[in-house]
Amino acid sequence: MKNPTIEGVIIQPLKIIADELGVVLHMLRNDDPVFEKFGEVYFSEIKPGSVKAWKRNKKQTQNLAVPIGSVNLVIYDDRPNSTTQGVLFSCILGRPDHYNLIGIPPLLWYGFRGLGAAPALIANCPDQPHNPAESEKIPRESKLIPYTWPI
Amino acid sequence: MKNPTIEGVIIQPLKIIADELGVVLHMLRNDDPVFEKFGEVYFSEIKPGSVKAWKRNKKQTQNLAVPIGSVNLVIYDDRPNSTTQGVLFSCILGRPDHYNLIGIPPLLWYGFRGLGAAPALIANCPDQPHNPAESEKIPRESKLIPYTWPI
Repeated sequence: MKNPTIEGVIIQPLKIIADELGVVLHMLRNDDPVFEKFGEVYFSEIKPGSVKAWKRNKKQTQNLAVPIGSVNLVIYDDRPNSTTQGVLFSCILGRPDHYNLIGIPPLLWYGFRGLGAAPALIANCPDQPHNPAESEKIPRESKLIPYTWPI
Repeated sequence: MKNPTIEGVIIQPLKIIADELGVVLHMLRNDDPVFEKFGEVYFSEIKPGSVKAWKRNKKQTQNLAVPIGSVNLVIYDDRPNSTTQGVLFSCILGRPDHYNLIGIPPLLWYGFRGLGAAPALIANCPDQPHNPAESEKIPRESKLIPYTWPI
């Protein structure tokens, strides 16, 4: 498990099990040290070049992996009491070299950009089911976050 | 929820939420009536024309959906005390018309064949994490099951 530059964010490499009929891709088990609670599992497809940003959850922890295609994930920390307040974190998620589980705790801003030539699939297994009342969105051009998504 | 022809198997249509940047695909929530326990979430890719069969679990219930591509799922019931003993069930899983959650209880034989021109992705959210000791495999040509996979 590597500790990236934002407090509370975890990145953990995931196993890809070779099989000539098609690979098997691990994501999250109930006996994994990073597992806390199961809220939901769902998928978000993202078209090449499209940006889904910015989003923040007040209570929900995200557990993400990208089994199809690849994306650029960007996270921004503006939590007043965080040791990494003001830090921006960017990484690639996707096979074969970046098939990782990434855990994003509440109150961080995050967004995605689809890479490559085909849609990517983001799998999410948060600790609580989706509740619109605890999720916030701001426009991707928001001045609140010191990052410019490519057009 | 439709009740297919094998006792204990459930099929439930899943929501696909339109979004011009890429759709959102539901799979399973902890407040869904069919949800019992979270064991694991993982993915199995299957190449076009490839067959992954047959498999049976002694204790684990499978919860499957196919967010990418499409597959033919075949289930065979040889449980001695089942009201549907001897029944074979076949269905297509995949978007946009067959994006369903399918629940397969223990002791049923099941297998998949990849359809279409690109690999399909089977997502599975069983009620227990994978344990090789409770899972059995027999060759896809086995005479035990009255079904012939296309070559």
